[in-house]
Amino acid sequence: MTGRFIAFEGGEGAGKSTQIARLAEALRARGEDVVVTREPGGTPGAEEIRALFVQGATGRWTVETDVLLVSAARADHVARLIRPALEAGKTVLCDRFIHSTLAYQGCGKGVSIGLLKRLHRFATGDLWPDLVLWLDLPVELGLSRSTKRAAAQDSALPQEQRFEALGLAYHEKVRRGFAAFAADDPRVVRIDAAQPIDDVTAAIAAVAL
Amino acid sequence: MTGRFIAFEGGEGAGKSTQIARLAEALRARGEDVVVTREPGGTPGAEEIRALFVQGATGRWTVETDVLLVSAARADHVARLIRPALEAGKTVLCDRFIHSTLAYQGCGKGVSIGLLKRLHRFATGDLWPDLVLWLDLPVELGLSRSTKRAAAQDSALPQEQRFEALGLAYHEKVRRGFAAFAADDPRVVRIDAAQPIDDVTAAIAAVAL
Repeated sequence: MTGRFIAFEGGEGAGKSTQIARLAEALRARGEDVVVTREPGGTPGAEEIRALFVQGATGRWTVETDVLLVSAARADHVARLIRPALEAGKTVLCDRFIHSTLAYQGCGKGVSIGLLKRLHRFATGDLWPDLVLWLDLPVELGLSRSTKRAAAQDSALPQEQRFEALGLAYHEKVRRGFAAFAADDPRVVRIDAAQPIDDVTAAIAAVAL
Repeated sequence: MTGRFIAFEGGEGAGKSTQIARLAEALRARGEDVVVTREPGGTPGAEEIRALFVQGATGRWTVETDVLLVSAARADHVARLIRPALEAGKTVLCDRFIHSTLAYQGCGKGVSIGLLKRLHRFATGDLWPDLVLWLDLPVELGLSRSTKRAAAQDSALPQEQRFEALGLAYHEKVRRGFAAFAADDPRVVRIDAAQPIDDVTAAIAAVAL
């Protein structure tokens, strides 16, 4: 595997899309072949699986079904897009990856982290990002940005990951989960997403360029 | 759990649908409340997941995605239909269940049986049938019946489980897998499906009534 795999994590309103676009531009400017993708989804098959949980009401699926669907989508995404791109030497930037599952379904909803890691090993052949950029916002600030955004557009986010649906306590657990991953694993880097947008870009550049 | 859970296994052409209908009738005649269902599918959510692998070409999904999708569908089916029915004291007859996954993806395609069992524990809370009726046919006979049937109608079976798609060697491995399950686990009972249809019914009645 010769390419580099960078995942972006963080809640709605943290600015992931903007920062992914900026990092892609900077990497291309220095000659890298960059693939930008997202989860859940990223391939035709995975987008079809994504549609199953983007559509429909919160609580439509049990947490077990939710985890298995997102893992199925990830298996397709890795096999059909991410792994081939990395093997071709490309840089892959992915909006959410396994740490979303570990944080939302694991830390947030109590699914065993060990089990989620074993499931990931099966689904992806144990593919982990080389770098995870966690765009961190205080939960109240994320909620306020997310609410504004939902008012401005129909959110395409999975129901289960919408701030509004699950409450502050849940999102505090998710945030503590990401903080623990960053403390335990040097590949997971916290980026302060509450600072001005250009400062976020600079902080990412310092780590990823 | 007070109800009884009976799964029917066996390839196309083994006569599962007919025998399920007959057993359901016999159980109802003696006053049992019977639920007949099938996999993959059985609930609105699981049927939507099923549609992802019934539609589309063979090889559309990797075996990993296939296993995760079928497990996601099973998680929904168990949570929303099978477990509530059993808890209400009903008898559940299911066309295919976990032993299909163990035989087709495990024995047939080489996915670890231990992993499939751990996945099943997560997906279903470790729900196993009280009785598995394996309607066994020699592979060549199954193939011949299946081919006639495919000519008569559009098969609604998942591509991956169609005889034609995968060849005799694969189906021999699957059959040997079922034989091993029957040898190891008294809950898995081989029924000779090559005998006349009324004799199959009688053999099932001897075990299940």
